[in-house]
Amino acid sequence: MTNYQFKVDEIIDKIRDMGAEIVGLQFPEGLKVHATQLSDEIEAKTGVTVLISGDPCWGACDLSDREMEGLVDLLVHFGHTPLPIEYKVPTLFIEASYHLESMEILNESLMLLEGKEKIGLVTTTQHLHLLDDAASFLEENGKQVVMKEGSGTLKGQVLGCNFSSVQDLPVDAFLYLGSGNFHPLGIKLSTQKPVIIADPYLNQARNIDEVADRILRIRFARIIRAKEAQKFGILISSKVGQSRWELAKSLKKMIYKGGKEAYLILLDEINPPSLMPFMDLDAFIVTACPRIAIDDSEMYEKPLLTPHELEIVLGIREWEDYKMDEIKY
Amino acid sequence: MTNYQFKVDEIIDKIRDMGAEIVGLQFPEGLKVHATQLSDEIEAKTGVTVLISGDPCWGACDLSDREMEGLVDLLVHFGHTPLPIEYKVPTLFIEASYHLESMEILNESLMLLEGKEKIGLVTTTQHLHLLDDAASFLEENGKQVVMKEGSGTLKGQVLGCNFSSVQDLPVDAFLYLGSGNFHPLGIKLSTQKPVIIADPYLNQARNIDEVADRILRIRFARIIRAKEAQKFGILISSKVGQSRWELAKSLKKMIYKGGKEAYLILLDEINPPSLMPFMDLDAFIVTACPRIAIDDSEMYEKPLLTPHELEIVLGIREWEDYKMDEIKY
Repeated sequence: MTNYQFKVDEIIDKIRDMGAEIVGLQFPEGLKVHATQLSDEIEAKTGVTVLISGDPCWGACDLSDREMEGLVDLLVHFGHTPLPIEYKVPTLFIEASYHLESMEILNESLMLLEGKEKIGLVTTTQHLHLLDDAASFLEENGKQVVMKEGSGTLKGQVLGCNFSSVQDLPVDAFLYLGSGNFHPLGIKLSTQKPVIIADPYLNQARNIDEVADRILRIRFARIIRAKEAQKFGILISSKVGQSRWELAKSLKKMIYKGGKEAYLILLDEINPPSLMPFMDLDAFIVTACPRIAIDDSEMYEKPLLTPHELEIVLGIREWEDYKMDEIKY
Repeated sequence: MTNYQFKVDEIIDKIRDMGAEIVGLQFPEGLKVHATQLSDEIEAKTGVTVLISGDPCWGACDLSDREMEGLVDLLVHFGHTPLPIEYKVPTLFIEASYHLESMEILNESLMLLEGKEKIGLVTTTQHLHLLDDAASFLEENGKQVVMKEGSGTLKGQVLGCNFSSVQDLPVDAFLYLGSGNFHPLGIKLSTQKPVIIADPYLNQARNIDEVADRILRIRFARIIRAKEAQKFGILISSKVGQSRWELAKSLKKMIYKGGKEAYLILLDEINPPSLMPFMDLDAFIVTACPRIAIDDSEMYEKPLLTPHELEIVLGIREWEDYKMDEIKY
């Protein structure tokens, strides 16, 4: 039906094992278009009633378990691996792996890895199943592949908020299999090592360096602007997996110590309209998903900063010690 | 500071009585601009830490108690009266009454009430404190004022989803004190009696009839269009005070009985982007806040219907029996 594999048999087995009668389905944005078709298939094969979560979903940090508590017997969450969080309803994680037509892109990547022997192979959830083949390919081409599990991530897996699987990995360079720039940027900034992207969607192998430079220049500009801020909003996520309440409170104290003012603001979805009423605030610190401040930066009129960036603004951290924000569980 | 009274002394007393250390503040959209100023005042006078809810808030049906559970000792909710719902954190409801410069508008309304003797006086939360003065004024001008409590509403109070305080009231006409058309429309459709609006914001007295006709024509057009629909999305709110899960499941059965298909979709905020992934659905039934289908109708490409409107689509209810959707607790 698509390039994604939804493992319907596994879902049906689980439903039958549990005797579930009402089943929740939750999808990340890119997969939500398949919701009704999967609902049809699951209802037809098992007789359950399906409840689809329609809210935006960005990760396993953003599970619909609190909303579905009391409504469903089982929640099937697609596209992410579980986080070490206690979920409120029984949850089946279905990785929804993306089927690639060709791995030709790895060939192209080889050129950019010339002279590098030890390669750290990295990817995101939907391509984890490709790592073994990719590793074999690299080894057949004379490379040594190094991977490890992270804290809360599988071997070779990174999340937008968790780069622990690449930290201190003894490699000459990283090969990131996937699309987008955020994850390879995180690998670059977490390790300071060369990062090559093998992007099977754009069918393009590229180096992250140029993008990393551009993003860092933007971050620098935001930080400079925020140095003039007097009043800060500290944004706290009400999503359990993105909530850093203790951090938020400590940032508030840090800001007052720096002679400025701060307000704690709890939000489910962080987006430009939700910040509009806070027109007297000059800058916002995001303690929710680390991607928001970086990836969505241009949507916002006021500077959005990560907690580490706030430290630079307040003169507590040097720009040279810039690091990616991560959420530790 | 504004035309609203926030009763800060009452809040401070409550905080001291409880010994609260962390206090949540939640405001409806129109009052949220005052959040930081109130936060300053409350923190300065009591030493608590304030946490502001930044999510959109549409009523006491939409309390931030689930999100703030475990974070705050007390939640102060502005602008609405409590609903008969069990809230998860101790909550202080502050009605945030609007101070009007003049009641001159009542004079103008008198003309439109000519020939009517028994008047039902009605308003929304932020003007409840004006009812006594308005009643005296009407009585001084020879009218008899009739008001009653509703199920879950105060004397003379209506909510966007609850018109029980006007139903079966033995009056010749209603005088609605406030702005907007949705509430007077509900009074009109719930009672079939004349409804005059005394709008102190526009400084205008007007009859609801013309607006009611226009809105009903739009509703009729939506219903006609939805008769061609084959696949329906049934939208269920995850806000506790707007959740009608049993109704949603019964609507699904009703739709299948009518030979069409239906999908249950759980949402926190219902807005056009959240429905975009469901491009194969032809129409949506809103079991959440009744205002969404009516007031926001033009924002959506596909028809949004209330449960009663669905019955008309399926031929179970006659158009002549059109009624407003209400949420009964």
